[in-house]
Parts: sequence; structure tokens; C-alpha cells
Amino acid sequence: MSMEIIDGGVTAAKGFKAAGVAAGIKYTGRKDMAMIFSEKPCAVAGMFTSNVVKAAPVRFDMAIVKDSPYVQAVVVNSGIANAATGEKGMKACRDTAKACADALNIPADAVLIGSTGVIGEQIPMDRIIPGVSALAKELSDTREAAGNAEAAIMTTDTVPKEIAVKTDIGGKTVTIGGMSKGSGMIHPNMCTMLAYICTDCSISKEMLERAAHADIPDTFNMITVDGDTSTNDTYLVMANGLAENPKIESEGEDFDAFMEALHYVNVYLARNMAKDGEGATALFEVKVIHADTKDNAKTLARSVAGSSLCKAAIFGHDSNFGRFLCAMGYSGAGFDPEKVSLEFESRAGRICVFEKGMKTAYSEDEATAILSEDEVTVIADMDEGDAKATAWGCDLSYDYVKINADYRS
Amino acid sequence: MSMEIIDGGVTAAKGFKAAGVAAGIKYTGRKDMAMIFSEKPCAVAGMFTSNVVKAAPVRFDMAIVKDSPYVQAVVVNSGIANAATGEKGMKACRDTAKACADALNIPADAVLIGSTGVIGEQIPMDRIIPGVSALAKELSDTREAAGNAEAAIMTTDTVPKEIAVKTDIGGKTVTIGGMSKGSGMIHPNMCTMLAYICTDCSISKEMLERAAHADIPDTFNMITVDGDTSTNDTYLVMANGLAENPKIESEGEDFDAFMEALHYVNVYLARNMAKDGEGATALFEVKVIHADTKDNAKTLARSVAGSSLCKAAIFGHDSNFGRFLCAMGYSGAGFDPEKVSLEFESRAGRICVFEKGMKTAYSEDEATAILSEDEVTVIADMDEGDAKATAWGCDLSYDYVKINADYRS
Repeated sequence: MSMEIIDGGVTAAKGFKAAGVAAGIKYTGRKDMAMIFSEKPCAVAGMFTSNVVKAAPVRFDMAIVKDSPYVQAVVVNSGIANAATGEKGMKACRDTAKACADALNIPADAVLIGSTGVIGEQIPMDRIIPGVSALAKELSDTREAAGNAEAAIMTTDTVPKEIAVKTDIGGKTVTIGGMSKGSGMIHPNMCTMLAYICTDCSISKEMLERAAHADIPDTFNMITVDGDTSTNDTYLVMANGLAENPKIESEGEDFDAFMEALHYVNVYLARNMAKDGEGATALFEVKVIHADTKDNAKTLARSVAGSSLCKAAIFGHDSNFGRFLCAMGYSGAGFDPEKVSLEFESRAGRICVFEKGMKTAYSEDEATAILSEDEVTVIADMDEGDAKATAWGCDLSYDYVKINADYRS
Repeated sequence: MSMEIIDGGVTAAKGFKAAGVAAGIKYTGRKDMAMIFSEKPCAVAGMFTSNVVKAAPVRFDMAIVKDSPYVQAVVVNSGIANAATGEKGMKACRDTAKACADALNIPADAVLIGSTGVIGEQIPMDRIIPGVSALAKELSDTREAAGNAEAAIMTTDTVPKEIAVKTDIGGKTVTIGGMSKGSGMIHPNMCTMLAYICTDCSISKEMLERAAHADIPDTFNMITVDGDTSTNDTYLVMANGLAENPKIESEGEDFDAFMEALHYVNVYLARNMAKDGEGATALFEVKVIHADTKDNAKTLARSVAGSSLCKAAIFGHDSNFGRFLCAMGYSGAGFDPEKVSLEFESRAGRICVFEKGMKTAYSEDEATAILSEDEVTVIADMDEGDAKATAWGCDLSYDYVKINADYRS
């Protein structure tokens, strides 16, 4: 196993093409439709929002992932979420998939759909259908094409998110490339807006599902921006087998190598979604160590990462550690406050501010310096066992409020 | 039963005195210690934070409420929470109660303690003890004295919160007066920072507890400012019997009359805490009607009231109803999105924006006008049954971030 990070995104793996175009869905003068296409049929695994209100494309994709023998393309639009749109919204998905299938000469049930944007508005099919045609013509396996697709799925994101890694599996080079968009309405519970992972690994659908389902609880489900779980959250991983490695059909060394690479991709995309949370000025990482159980560690980490007061303290570079302790206290996880220690860490250093239930004689200036970096970690040592977990969030800034008080205009 | 709202606060009921002084706990030039004293021993009921990290005064009061035959005084300080302060923090409570008991010539176990402010710092006993002496000398049953106590328990609150009502019970006039402080770190789960209710009703401890425990889940536990449940939340109701009504020792007409008055007091204080949430420009009321169960109605209402995205939409007067639907969807309560209708209501009118799962052809301008008032209600009709619930929150503004990014300076 020798995993390596390489340049690229969804077109990095063999046989994958992408495109992004401006279809005028809601925005003007920017790309708002993306397509991913695989030359060869792909095994697919997906995880979707736990929200009771599931957008039409989520319901559409859930059926495809469950029932289709394979998939070959994804069409995504930003601007309108196609959520709370009734039967008309479902028909929009079917018609989009049909148009895509016709353009690419593949079966309609090999097409997945994704949407992100405002809830409650209908998709303008008179712009979607020409958009699909334009995308099909633009498809390319270049680095630039991947960039166009990444740009097209952004809403309030400030930077595109992409990653690619390669690893050795069974003597063959396997590549995994991915893109995602995040920003607002982001909270643990599968997953975070849209993430698309494309790999040329040869792997059975069952093992691909096992890999995704094992890794997401510790990656995408551990990030939070604002506690709001979207109606559209979608994670899809597609594997077309073009790497020609011996097909992974059970656990073992090859599966482990694939898992390691997939985990890297998932953590990278999840972490960068958190860092680019709406209005964020800093990535806010929370590590809980020495907890009694894994579940408690996760609950504690997510509670701190999701607390408005903790997030505001990070924005203010304020070492107000009581808020972190308080957020652990109401998380629902039991623990002994008298055993807890808290440290802050960043590029600027590491400082212990609270030790075994009591404030230390720490320097406020030093703590402020540590909290002033753009990636800040809070480490909570529970002194109760060996379990640990990490959650990723971002600070709460004026800009979060600004963006969300007036999102639609 | 003829309940009437009257002027006043914690000194409105017979036999209650109060005081507020500037003891220099943390702030300078403002009142930061309060005392309530009842001439006669009081039955007491209390509810306290569900946070695992319970401040020293919370643990102290829980023992008093459970074990003491009666109580007669409360000492409260703002500025420092006396939370995460170890054994030294508990000793501070005991010493404060002892000083209060000596000054008032009552037993030490008849004294309750409350604190609110920064977590992790020790209480400065060299200022608390002189503060207790000053408070004991200032005690008075005037309206002004109640106002001084209200001012002293405030932190980031912008207005004091008080209420008094009188009602007829068994041919006697019974008065209930109360005060509270709220603002930040406010979220359902008992209750919201500090609330003190003083009544001259003659009622057994058991029935007083029953009244408090029955009412708080629908009042104080239905408000949220920022989702953070404090380490110090305390609700106390004290009844000294001076109204000389026939003692309430069981359910019946008299208990109902008391409950009605207590409910009014609790709703008023809870609602006003929400409205004065940190940085709030509007009270954000969420009514869920026609839900299948009371629990689901409460879960749905609290999820919407607590959603950062919904709160930001209210701040922006933005009729982005999809966010309200989304927040219901991830609440954990099950429902059929196709049956949901949503209305906005305020002094400016009422408008239906979403009906049985679809957007209506409503006027954005009209919706914006309705959402621009300082008290705004969202009504979600689930069309599933007869259960209903109301939650109270506030909008999310730039000032919330400002207050909390730099709370301690």
C-alpha cells in the first residue's frame, strides 16, 4: 500500500468525464449544471439525507442506487433544490434522466440526479433540457472539465472542493477522485450536501456499499456548519473497474487499501466543506480522546463543534473554555466533569486551559494567539477509556448571518 | 377564577422582600447581587439544568429543594457562574448561605443560591460576603426593590423581566410575582438561566412541585435562543402561605386556579426571555397544530425555533419557507410532507405560503411585511391529528455573533 495524493478531481480516475455549463437555472453568468459520465458501467453506493423531507432527486437516486444494475452518469444543478415540489418535482427528475440517457446513449435507469439550492421552487425544465444537451457535448476527461463541474455545483461555497489519490491494489494503480459542495444547511446525519466520488477500482457493489457505509459515519457525518440537515444531502461513489485490479469481492488486503484511500478522500472533502462553511473564517476541529465509548466520543465532539456559543468563541479567538465544557455537558453523553481536561491547538502551538475539572493558570495571550489561526483544534481528554472521535465545524461569523438573512436575493 | 395582571415582580406577593446591590463581582458600576427574602417559611419547588456539568449553586440548590423542610431566602450573583469550580465552588455556596442565614437570622439550609456568568472562574468571596450584608440591609417589599433585584441578575439581557398576577383562590386573593434573566446559552431542557417565582399562596410542597413540573415542559422548556443548555439553569417557585387561602393539598378548583395563574407567569417570563435573546430583533414563535402526538408537536416546534437557518431568515424578513419545512424534517419527528401547510402571522397580518406540500402563489411583499414585525409567528399545520405545541425563540442577528465572539471583554 502506497497511497499518494495527486492533482485532480472527478476526472482523475480512468474513464470518467465531466462538464459544467451555465444553464441559467437561477443564477446568471455562472455555471449551474454539472455532469459526470463514465465510459463503462459503474457499481454504485450512496448515502442520503436522514431528513423526513427528502428532495425529489434524493428519492429518485435512492431508487436507482437500490435497483439499477449499474449507473453511468450524474446530472446536477445548483440554484433550486427541487425539494417540496410534489409529483411535478419527481417528473422533473425522470425527464432529466431521460434527456441525459438519450444524449449519452445509455439506459435511463443508469442516470443519477442531484440538486441544491432553494427549497419549494419547481425546476425550470425549459432550461434543464438544453443544459443537459450542452453538458453532453462538453464532456471531457481533462482537469479543466472537472473544475467546471465543481464550479457548477457550488451555491454559497467560496472555493471548489476536489481531491484525487492513487494507490496500489493487486499490482494495479487505482485512482479515486472526488468533488463536493457544502457551505450551509450542513450537519451530521448523512451527509453534507453533495459529494461525488469516482474511482476506476474494480469492486463489487456490495463491497463498495460496505466501504461507504463504514467510512461516512466517521467523516461526512462528523461535520457540522449550522446544525441544519438538508433535504438534499447526497453522497455517491461510482466504481467503473477500469484500473483492472483483481475485483474486490470480500474483505482483505485489497479492500483495506481501497478503504484507506477512500477514507483519505472522504476526510479531505468533509474537512474542506467544514472549513468553507458559510461565513467561516476558521476550520474548527474537535477531538475527543480517552472517552468511554466511541458513541460518546462522537456525541461529545459533535456537540462542541455544533454549539453556537463555541463557534462564536472561535470566531472571537476567545479562550472561553467553559463553553466547550458546557456543550459537552448538554450533549447527552455522560461523563465526569472533574476528570475532563481541555487543550487548544493550532499551527501557533498547543495550550492546556482546563485540567481535571479546574482552570489552569494559562496565558490568555498565548491562548488567543493559538485560536487566531485559520485551523483550530480543541482537544477534550475525558480520562475515561480508549475511545476517540473527531468532528469538524467552523466558526460562527457575522457573514453567516448576512448570507442567511438574505440568501435568496 | 378571575386572574388579573398587576404591576410588580418578586415583591408583589405578601411577605416577600428583595434587594439588588453592586458588589463588584465582575462588573463595575452596576448591580450584580440580588436577594429575595420571605418573612415566613416557604414551600419550594425547583427545576434545574439537565446539563451533565452542573454549576455549584445548582447542585447546592438541588439538595436544599430536596431535603430542607422550607426555604426563606435566595442569594444570586451575576458575572461569574461558579461552574467547573470544584470543591472550592461548593464551599463558596455553603459560605454564602451561612452569611445570608446569619444576616437574616434564619437556618442556613433555608437559603438558596444562584449564579450566572462566566464558567470556570472562582467566586470572589471577599466581595460576596460584604455583598450579602449590604443586601440584607437593603431588603424591602417595594416595587423598586424588586426592580433592583431584577437588574442585578442580568448579564447580556437588555431589559429586566418581571410579571405579577393575582387571582382568587378559596375566597382569598392570591398573588404570584416573578423575575427571570435569560439572553444567551438558552435552550429547552430546564429551563433558561434563572427564574424566581414568589407567591403568597398556601399550597403544600407536593402540590407546588406538581404544578411546576406540569407547567415547565410547556413553557420554559419550549424556549430556545441558541441551542446551548447552560450549566446554571434554575427555576424556583416559593410559596409562603400569607394569602391565607385554604391550603391546596390536592387537585381541584383551587389547584386549577393556581395553575392558571402560574402558567400565565411562566409563559410571560419564558416568552420575554426568548424575545430578549442575545442580539434578537424579533420574537420568533412557532406553533405546530394538528400534529399526531403532543411529543411530535413539541419536537417539531422546537426544531424550527432552534434552527440557525430559520432564525436567520426571520432576521432577514425572508419568507424562505423551505427552511421551516427542512427543520421539521430533521427534527426526528415523523410526518407526511405532502400534508403540511405553513402560515406566517404577525400584527401585520397572516399569509399561507405552503399548502399541502406545495408552494402557494403568495405575495413575497406581503410575506416580507408580515415578517418585519418584532413578534412573528410561524404556524405549521401537520393535518395529522389534534396535538399542538408552541415554542419560542428569537432571530439570529449580527449582534448575537458580536456579543458571543467577545463576551468576556
